[in-house]
Amino acid sequence: MNASDFRRRGKEMVDYMADYLEGIEGRQVYPDVQPGYLRPLIPATAPQEPDTFEDILQDVEKIIMPGVTHWHSPYFFAYFPTASSYPAMLADMLCGAIGCIGFSWAASPACTELETVMMDWLGKMLQLPEAFLAGEAGEGGGVIQGSASEATLVALLAARTKVTRRLQAASPGLTQGAVLEKLVAYASDQAHSSVERAGLIGGVKLKAIPSDGKFAMRASALQEALERDKAAGLIPFFVVATLGTTSCCSFDNLLEVGPICHEEDIWLHVDAAYAGSAFICPEFRHLLNGVEFADSFNFNPHKWLLVNFDCSAMWVKRRTDLTGAFKLDPVYLKHSHQGSGECWPQGLRLLPHWQLPLGRRFRSLKMWFVFRMYGVKGLQAYIRKHVQLSHEFEAFVLQDPRFEVCAEVTLGLVCFRLKGSDGLNEALLERINSARKIHLVPCRLRGQFVLRFAICSRKVESGHVRLAWEHIRGLAAELLAAEEGKAGRPHCRPCTGATEQGPRLQKWTERMPRGGSRNVERGLLCTLF
Amino acid sequence: MNASDFRRRGKEMVDYMADYLEGIEGRQVYPDVQPGYLRPLIPATAPQEPDTFEDILQDVEKIIMPGVTHWHSPYFFAYFPTASSYPAMLADMLCGAIGCIGFSWAASPACTELETVMMDWLGKMLQLPEAFLAGEAGEGGGVIQGSASEATLVALLAARTKVTRRLQAASPGLTQGAVLEKLVAYASDQAHSSVERAGLIGGVKLKAIPSDGKFAMRASALQEALERDKAAGLIPFFVVATLGTTSCCSFDNLLEVGPICHEEDIWLHVDAAYAGSAFICPEFRHLLNGVEFADSFNFNPHKWLLVNFDCSAMWVKRRTDLTGAFKLDPVYLKHSHQGSGECWPQGLRLLPHWQLPLGRRFRSLKMWFVFRMYGVKGLQAYIRKHVQLSHEFEAFVLQDPRFEVCAEVTLGLVCFRLKGSDGLNEALLERINSARKIHLVPCRLRGQFVLRFAICSRKVESGHVRLAWEHIRGLAAELLAAEEGKAGRPHCRPCTGATEQGPRLQKWTERMPRGGSRNVERGLLCTLF
Repeated sequence: MNASDFRRRGKEMVDYMADYLEGIEGRQVYPDVQPGYLRPLIPATAPQEPDTFEDILQDVEKIIMPGVTHWHSPYFFAYFPTASSYPAMLADMLCGAIGCIGFSWAASPACTELETVMMDWLGKMLQLPEAFLAGEAGEGGGVIQGSASEATLVALLAARTKVTRRLQAASPGLTQGAVLEKLVAYASDQAHSSVERAGLIGGVKLKAIPSDGKFAMRASALQEALERDKAAGLIPFFVVATLGTTSCCSFDNLLEVGPICHEEDIWLHVDAAYAGSAFICPEFRHLLNGVEFADSFNFNPHKWLLVNFDCSAMWVKRRTDLTGAFKLDPVYLKHSHQGSGECWPQGLRLLPHWQLPLGRRFRSLKMWFVFRMYGVKGLQAYIRKHVQLSHEFEAFVLQDPRFEVCAEVTLGLVCFRLKGSDGLNEALLERINSARKIHLVPCRLRGQFVLRFAICSRKVESGHVRLAWEHIRGLAAELLAAEEGKAGRPHCRPCTGATEQGPRLQKWTERMPRGGSRNVERGLLCTLF
Repeated sequence: MNASDFRRRGKEMVDYMADYLEGIEGRQVYPDVQPGYLRPLIPATAPQEPDTFEDILQDVEKIIMPGVTHWHSPYFFAYFPTASSYPAMLADMLCGAIGCIGFSWAASPACTELETVMMDWLGKMLQLPEAFLAGEAGEGGGVIQGSASEATLVALLAARTKVTRRLQAASPGLTQGAVLEKLVAYASDQAHSSVERAGLIGGVKLKAIPSDGKFAMRASALQEALERDKAAGLIPFFVVATLGTTSCCSFDNLLEVGPICHEEDIWLHVDAAYAGSAFICPEFRHLLNGVEFADSFNFNPHKWLLVNFDCSAMWVKRRTDLTGAFKLDPVYLKHSHQGSGECWPQGLRLLPHWQLPLGRRFRSLKMWFVFRMYGVKGLQAYIRKHVQLSHEFEAFVLQDPRFEVCAEVTLGLVCFRLKGSDGLNEALLERINSARKIHLVPCRLRGQFVLRFAICSRKVESGHVRLAWEHIRGLAAELLAAEEGKAGRPHCRPCTGATEQGPRLQKWTERMPRGGSRNVERGLLCTLF
């Protein structure tokens, strides 16, 4: 394929992309396929001679699309949003053409420098404390990681190195193994599973701090754990506070937890993977109060800030903590600093030493395009719309006495359930996902099976939320009726909702063909995303 | 930006991409900018109101391009290649539009399934032993990682978990810390720095095995280290063998190292990051002999197989070793297996548990497009052309008695130097990179400063290699003349090369404006890529 073929095929692909996203509402949000569906549809080996582009594009519709979960459908309310915007796609196209691997300043100066400046832009949008910005002479700064999991791991490893060096400096005979056995990290019992994984990879204990009635980590519980562990001879060194937990978007109390970490000289990492995007709105910024106590902070613009995956933004107050964690080769350091102008802060030239892989794409182009083409006001409007929509859904749930809301609705997520058993709610979710009209995933809160309704798509509007609610109510009514039937009792519960909304739901049903009732995989979200 | 704007701007971007890649030969391969050049060129904060697309595209030329190292220029001979092809770019565009996050089968079945099948396709292209393929009922299989560094780390962590469990099963009182203190990993002294970093992250010792005269790890040196460490009470558990080292593309002797690892029950990870792509050619497949002894194998199609970054292919013989390493939550496992058909092997549904981040793009689309649009024969032809070009450069070097070739040329890399001091060769590289006509990086071999000439660009031809050589000879002649002048001796060395090739070089010089003689960052490659 030469450049002229690419001009032609690339433009066809642009139309295909636009067609896909414009028409996504007409596609069934969750696929009908069974595990293993794809292998029989394609040859067992790669072709020896080239296939045509036409064949491939046809196969995309025939083989790929039937197995796609359409994350950008306005009927997708599962997990959390993953960002998608046209400006980000344009930037990614450019990134692909430039195709540089920015593992050092010299490997592509623009790639390293734009990233640092974009992280400053974003930090200022969030009103992050000055200490987290690189500026022209700061000691902090930001870097794009691939995911929040990676950011947590990098922070934990940096904290581990720092405490180990401190302890070994104080007791020169101390081995690394002896230190590792005593180190303890902490996170709320609501924290994402990747925190546990980071502990596992880092070879340190991770303890779950019981959250309070609002699913938040509070001072008293953390303090209690610290005291107990210190009394047992262990060494607390790392705390992850979550802003916007995966299960229910609860917020650890940073203003309580922060000072404790500060006092105890414990590295505080703040994980705001989903919620962080909202902090660009002044009315949500208070949720970030206390970040001034943190050593590192991370959130995912690739979730809710219209920058396509992958783009996880991580800041630290002291860049040297990160670069030091990976023990640079002095020969390399010596050379990489040759030729550096006075104006360019050391450490910023070695972004790969802030992350696990060495190679890196020119991901900051996506931030640059998105921030400029939306403007801060456009991004704020986008966040506000999603929060508004989740409150609309919350209001629907609250109006129906058969349902309950299970956690405070702060941003774009509503946790809800039918009043009743876990079995009832599992059956409801089964009906919802089997019908294939909308897609939800569950979580567990205090052991209870709960449904999550997350506002996800860039194209979701009030109408979609209303239809989704009517659909859920209708299925709930059917389910409750069936349950009562099973129990041998007459249908006594008035299913007014389903009847009232009948015509509108009917219309929607015609538009979206009903899927089969095959098995649906229902990953429990808490460990998933 | 709505879909109709995107249709227009997307097509403009396709043209920009094609223009950039078609015209890349006319751009100066290495930029003139100084560290810190970019910040003053853009505003200190993101705009409140949207900028126009025209403004942004203009800024790409004005602000970004002057700071780009053009990796796809046919005058780029630095590091190793990074893949770039139009089919991969088309696939990446589609990947961006679908924008699913494939962290479980249900999150997008096509994403998980195509990856497994593509990894089988690629494994078959390499003639990997059957045990590494997933097939329909295999215990092995492949997964796309972000980078070879990540693959090495994942393999080390899996090996660490496996040996720890085995030892703890044998001695129930043994703590993890006690085990970690005794574990030792090994790699050749030529291995990539990411191996050392994996050891550091995993908290285990990593020992460098002295390589032989051909920069290869051999049985005797490995065996000696193992015996010594075992006698000291340590526990060898992990060996990385490199096929195609970063410095000089040397090959560890797998047929010797493999049986030792097998005998000693040590996890053998084979890292063929660059060289692996060549194994699709039958004439280079012998370099992979011995992989049957490996537990895991990795190479980067994003280096040399025309699949744009990131796409690092990793296979294991026992999937359970990887999934087990990250200690899955039983609740999650239970749910994720619900609804799985009999035909779909367990473990394949949880690709994220084979890697560090949980989120993942639909990267296998790139493999599918590239393999189909080139065909195996097209890919083989591409590899062969690069190897041919490196031998052409090698022949030039061998014909000039002032130069020497420093390591065997097997694939697309030539290590060479002026006969003489390190200082002389450092000065030569300085002249080469300051002239900005071609771009090279150095390495150290047995302590000597060596220049690396790597065939990188998809568009590099014999003519470019010849021009590059003539340029290098010319600069060497100037340098040697200047050195002799400094030493107070008359110019006695005939600089025939520069004279002979004068006219041709002149023509080229006109095409490529000479850059300033500013400082050039010369990262030592061995720790870089």
